Amino acid sequence: MTTTSAASLATDQRSLGDPDVRYPLWPPLTSGCPKTSTDEVAYPVEVDYAYDRVPAGLFDGQPPRTGLDRWAPLLPPLAAPGLGEGGTPLVELSPGVFVKDESRNPTWSHKDRLNRCTVGAALGSGAPGVVVASSGNHGASAAAYAARAGLRCVVLTGTDLPPAMDAFLHAYGAVVLPVPTAARWPLTRRIAEHFGLQPVSNLTRTHTGHAFGPEGYKTVAYEIHADLGVPAAVFLPTGYGELLFGVWKGFSELRRLGVTERVPRLFACEPATGAPLAAALRQGLPAAHVAVGRTDAYGIDCPVNSYRGVLAVRGSGGRAVPLTDEQLRSAQAELARSGLWAELSAAAGLAGLRACADEDFDGPVVCVSTSTGFKDRGVGAHRSEPADPEWPAVRARLRAAGLAE
Amino acid sequence: MTTTSAASLATDQRSLGDPDVRYPLWPPLTSGCPKTSTDEVAYPVEVDYAYDRVPAGLFDGQPPRTGLDRWAPLLPPLAAPGLGEGGTPLVELSPGVFVKDESRNPTWSHKDRLNRCTVGAALGSGAPGVVVASSGNHGASAAAYAARAGLRCVVLTGTDLPPAMDAFLHAYGAVVLPVPTAARWPLTRRIAEHFGLQPVSNLTRTHTGHAFGPEGYKTVAYEIHADLGVPAAVFLPTGYGELLFGVWKGFSELRRLGVTERVPRLFACEPATGAPLAAALRQGLPAAHVAVGRTDAYGIDCPVNSYRGVLAVRGSGGRAVPLTDEQLRSAQAELARSGLWAELSAAAGLAGLRACADEDFDGPVVCVSTSTGFKDRGVGAHRSEPADPEWPAVRARLRAAGLAE
Repeated sequence: MTTTSAASLATDQRSLGDPDVRYPLWPPLTSGCPKTSTDEVAYPVEVDYAYDRVPAGLFDGQPPRTGLDRWAPLLPPLAAPGLGEGGTPLVELSPGVFVKDESRNPTWSHKDRLNRCTVGAALGSGAPGVVVASSGNHGASAAAYAARAGLRCVVLTGTDLPPAMDAFLHAYGAVVLPVPTAARWPLTRRIAEHFGLQPVSNLTRTHTGHAFGPEGYKTVAYEIHADLGVPAAVFLPTGYGELLFGVWKGFSELRRLGVTERVPRLFACEPATGAPLAAALRQGLPAAHVAVGRTDAYGIDCPVNSYRGVLAVRGSGGRAVPLTDEQLRSAQAELARSGLWAELSAAAGLAGLRACADEDFDGPVVCVSTSTGFKDRGVGAHRSEPADPEWPAVRARLRAAGLAE
Repeated sequence: MTTTSAASLATDQRSLGDPDVRYPLWPPLTSGCPKTSTDEVAYPVEVDYAYDRVPAGLFDGQPPRTGLDRWAPLLPPLAAPGLGEGGTPLVELSPGVFVKDESRNPTWSHKDRLNRCTVGAALGSGAPGVVVASSGNHGASAAAYAARAGLRCVVLTGTDLPPAMDAFLHAYGAVVLPVPTAARWPLTRRIAEHFGLQPVSNLTRTHTGHAFGPEGYKTVAYEIHADLGVPAAVFLPTGYGELLFGVWKGFSELRRLGVTERVPRLFACEPATGAPLAAALRQGLPAAHVAVGRTDAYGIDCPVNSYRGVLAVRGSGGRAVPLTDEQLRSAQAELARSGLWAELSAAAGLAGLRACADEDFDGPVVCVSTSTGFKDRGVGAHRSEPADPEWPAVRARLRAAGLAE
């Protein structure tokens, strides 16, 4: 259970609302920037580093398969033990189109990169555990990292938690509380305050989340760069935009450090039923609230965006791509035909690329697939009927399925 | 969809019943060695290589995260495209105890290493697809690699297929036929013959399986060696023993090539309800048939062993470790408390280590965890009741769960 990370070069926290507003590194801010946030918009904070002290060669060679520790200088202090997160492969779907398969993480989603950092924040703060509002990957990942660190985890889920996710959360020993949507965020805050737990999901009216979390996602950019250089574009499933921001910040750091000369265009792939980031960009706002319609992409189904997403899309010259469930299903099927079974939300990256047929990319593109098909709502609801085992019936069935005799 | 593997050094197939009995490399034998097999025991074949031509430096440095291609010289021809299989991390559970987490593979089990090779055999043989009898990881993995290669896949499952596995198999476009147990193997053979599909599961009375499959598992040994050197022992969940044999062969090759000086002791971890390998070893037989009792470890629940397992355990100075479901559940819980949610069968490796408290190991030990908790039968059967969202109720519940105020 020992970690052997190099020292973090993190220096302090900095407001995204005003980069001149700074806070000490500890305690991590879990409700955004108090000084610049208004009644309408909560501004997140990010972590700043002593960039002039980044070790030479940090970005040389292959990323190892041994967790985020390799990148420790540019991450918040990795106080919590790792589980071998990150180091996920790029699978070439067709020439120049790569899928970054984040289902290869310890809890089979990208969220492990974030929770390595947030649970480290809890441990570093002396909190006895974490509390998180999530019906999906974030909750399970927080539960796993908390268990690994010997901390407690309370997960406030919706009352429509998919049964497989229920088993998943309980496996790690989390306390699971399925409560109505309106109760989740007030309870998260109250539980955090009363029991001294570190909140690792959002507490504010427009999304801010945990200061340390999106830093973990920078490693997606570092890895893509190590495997491929700087691609022309990266397509990202986008809910509150923490992954999107992390990838943008990672590529920005590579440019800032002189490792690369440019950043890829980032495409934020949202369910069309809501698409708050698209609304914010269209209206020129830091954050927008939207009505959320019915979508099966429950992992990225958000009524409000974060200012982080605006910065990432604008800063990279990308755009938001709203996607229908039909487009998501089509991309999910395309991935499965290539041997990759992704959660519907996770297929948004590829769906976004397919929706941008009018764009011309001068180089390879990467679609991030965030998680596995096991986590979809419908999984487990259907069971195949027994087949007639007599040969004429089997033969007829296989012929009907297109197999040649 | 291009592969860039170095050339395979595979030369021919060799009988495990008599190493002087050889066959050409193509076609791959799918029913063991016809010359040495008897009515009682079917002997498997293995692949032999031009070991004197192994490139210098093949075992130097870190294994990459880009699939089995790195090891192409010592694998059967990798004719089928990969999905970034292998390269899984070792997670340190406690000082000197490592878990090789095979749930980080493309279909979240170790079977992907095998099916990269068997689907390559189908493609190299000009077969239009594969047929496999499996209710679990093997079927899904074969389906994924077949889809990736543009081939068809027929999966003969039991009629008690867990619903999540049903969704998993269908996702990759496999034809799924749930049939009674007694019908599965005759139908596998008949479908293979009639439709020209490559059978990638067993067809013989004692287990032989596909000649190319276990070769893929050698890479588990290569990776453990690259990360850790030669451990004192490796504990492996054992059904038909293909993984066990592959790991043994991999370490044996490293010794043969002068890369290492010894092999680790291999412990075959079987459900006590059947444990055919333990029976074969006890009785001094190449293979034993056993009555199979009730176990939830459906992935490794076998009525007969393969001679491969006997060779691996004897050759490495290891032993078979029969395990009760209670021991398996205890190991599954221990893994989950460390942040790793494993299938019950997958926890057999750690359960085996815990059952061998009397053994003294002079060096680190590795427990292989083969797959994820999502694949267990019970997953999806339970849904948490909604919690009372009022603060006094929530507070009481968290206090009852042991959280301090």
